[in-house]
Amino acid sequence: MTPLIEYEQSTGLVREIFDDIKATRKTNEINNFWKAIANHPPTLQRTWLALKEVMGGPGELDPLTRELIYLAVSITNGCDYCIASHRAAAVNKGMSETMFGELMSIVGIANMNNRLANGFQVPVDDKFK
Amino acid sequence: MTPLIEYEQSTGLVREIFDDIKATRKTNEINNFWKAIANHPPTLQRTWLALKEVMGGPGELDPLTRELIYLAVSITNGCDYCIASHRAAAVNKGMSETMFGELMSIVGIANMNNRLANGFQVPVDDKFK
Amino acid sequence: MTPLIEYEQSTGLVREIFDDIKATRKTNEINNFWKAIANHPPTLQRTWLALKEVMGGPGELDPLTRELIYLAVSITNGCDYCIASHRAAAVNKGMSETMFGELMSIVGIANMNNRLANGFQVPVDDKFK
Amino acid sequence: MTPLIEYEQSTGLVREIFDDIKATRKTNEINNFWKAIANHPPTLQRTWLALKEVMGGPGELDPLTRELIYLAVSITNGCDYCIASHRAAAVNKGMSETMFGELMSIVGIANMNNRLANGFQVPVDDKFK
Amino acid sequence: MTPLIEYEQSTGLVREIFDDIKATRKTNEINNFWKAIANHPPTLQRTWLALKEVMGGPGELDPLTRELIYLAVSITNGCDYCIASHRAAAVNKGMSETMFGELMSIVGIANMNNRLANGFQVPVDDKFK
Amino acid sequence: MTPLIEYEQSTGLVREIFDDIKATRKTNEINNFWKAIANHPPTLQRTWLALKEVMGGPGELDPLTRELIYLAVSITNGCDYCIASHRAAAVNKGMSETMFGELMSIVGIANMNNRLANGFQVPVDDKFK
Repeated sequence: MTPLIEYEQSTGLVREIFDDIKATRKTNEINNFWKAIANHPPTLQRTWLALKEVMGGPGELDPLTRELIYLAVSITNGCDYCIASHRAAAVNKGMSETMFGELMSIVGIANMNNRLANGFQVPVDDKFK
Repeated sequence: MTPLIEYEQSTGLVREIFDDIKATRKTNEINNFWKAIANHPPTLQRTWLALKEVMGGPGELDPLTRELIYLAVSITNGCDYCIASHRAAAVNKGMSETMFGELMSIVGIANMNNRLANGFQVPVDDKFK
Repeated sequence: MTPLIEYEQSTGLVREIFDDIKATRKTNEINNFWKAIANHPPTLQRTWLALKEVMGGPGELDPLTRELIYLAVSITNGCDYCIASHRAAAVNKGMSETMFGELMSIVGIANMNNRLANGFQVPVDDKFK
Repeated sequence: MTPLIEYEQSTGLVREIFDDIKATRKTNEINNFWKAIANHPPTLQRTWLALKEVMGGPGELDPLTRELIYLAVSITNGCDYCIASHRAAAVNKGMSETMFGELMSIVGIANMNNRLANGFQVPVDDKFK
Repeated sequence: MTPLIEYEQSTGLVREIFDDIKATRKTNEINNFWKAIANHPPTLQRTWLALKEVMGGPGELDPLTRELIYLAVSITNGCDYCIASHRAAAVNKGMSETMFGELMSIVGIANMNNRLANGFQVPVDDKFK
Repeated sequence: MTPLIEYEQSTGLVREIFDDIKATRKTNEINNFWKAIANHPPTLQRTWLALKEVMGGPGELDPLTRELIYLAVSITNGCDYCIASHRAAAVNKGMSETMFGELMSIVGIANMNNRLANGFQVPVDDKFK
């Protein structure tokens, strides 16, 4: 396991990013994800700035929809950490239990149908080209 | 490649499902996906009924959000057929070019961060358990 | 694209393996897969010997069941080449059109349920540990 | 983690499906998978009815072969829950330790060869088209 | 298919990034990848700046090793575009045919062994924790 | 979980392979991976001999580069056991903490860009064909 870098130990670029995470999220807690990737400061910086922009910046998709998309990818890939943390994030942004159930049914059927299309070797319809 | 069963050739259960697809989607066209899996009628029936309910039935998620989730899964899995057909479906339900770009940026970063969490072996925070 | 090494051009270890493929499969044709990986002879040799043993050697699983398992993996991974070639191999070993449809329905539902288990974060039952 | 809905707590549609699981499987135990997805009753119902038909309904593939295919997919996707529960199911339907070892060797080599075909960019042979 | 934005059509931020790609890579050609994601300028900018830094910035891993790692991921995911373009990039940075063959054998065996570890449900050794 | 076959219990072919592992790796410890797959001796033998040759045999890629490639695949697939054991192996062969951070950033961005290429349906440039 990668050692976690706690806020108190952090210095320089890592401390700066940790402060930005706290300010942006209006919380005193830093999730383990950031504490772990802080072991490689350029990756911490690049990842945080990209995530802040993509998930929280201006755009046409609302914050909840963005989280649902992120969660759908994480479930498809079977990333336990990401499922746990982004399910909590989605709840924070308004995902109800029913919405989660509906999301699961869509993720499930899409994963099934992706394989039906693969296995039956379905040619793409001209109108979709 | 699996032979495609055209509407004109279809009989029995397959014809029934094809008619339901046409009526539900208010179109005369049957996509290749259905023509291919019609080679195994019980799979055609089960898949269509599930898809109709999950993507088009009542629920808290609106139709566009459902398509965005479906598309995110298909892109993650690299299913060419599903990407082509569900991108068209999402456009039909209101996805703008900008929304598609935003979806892509979320799908991309989620796939990246899933691997950062895997590789750094990040332990799940207690608050997410 | 990797250049394909034709039988006529082959020499040494590659020719030896090509001859063994022909003798084992009782055919004069070498599939493109072998012609491509022949660009790295040790990979050709290792892969062929392993495949010959695993798919064709003695064992409790009959040859058709082995092909169905191989095909299920290839469909799950979306490997176009492997789906096309192993679907043909399965037909050669007795897979009917109905069996293929049943295989597809199982592969589809397993891919769906794998994600339902991931997303609902289902804990393993004690009896399965 | 999703809360598990125990049989005793279940009502309405969930209770009905739980009763059908018990009757079909001739057991008093409900696996955690069903207790978890019971949080979204329509997903529970759809998933159970599909699984019952696909894995237990009439067909040309025998029950053990179906389980081996399901298990091969679950191992390829790395779904811990599904591997644990369907390995037990396969043993129940007659999978010996040797069969499991053979299954593993096929799943392993198929996953390897899928990537060899990808990476060497092998073109599909005309005869497989 | 996404329309490709040619250099001649590009303006503003897209033109700026296209100019940086040309200058950094010392070429007049822009690959289709950039022409496609230019449809969403913020994704173009973020992706190019990250790639330039990760693949070309200072670091302990030499440029060829970085390309081999990138290629190994792309082959594992079965991304045809990425395999074709990064195989060319790796050759440019010194990958011989033999190195490519060795890379393929490692990617193949790692994909196999990942599933053997999954399927045999191997517990992590204490010394690796 | 698969029972682990300890060295002391091992006989015949399994003992032979275990002895070769110890001699090759100059250690008295056998990792759980080998103890688990020893339940199917032909898989143990085939896998060990292939791994020994691919990761340790003569070749143009140095041992550290081979481990980095193996690790990149394992992280992409999310194989916890393989990540833990091969990260330790890479450290043994000279991977610094900075190298690991750089590897992670490449694996992350490749996984992201693979999906950008999929989703934007980027056509392969003629020069890469």
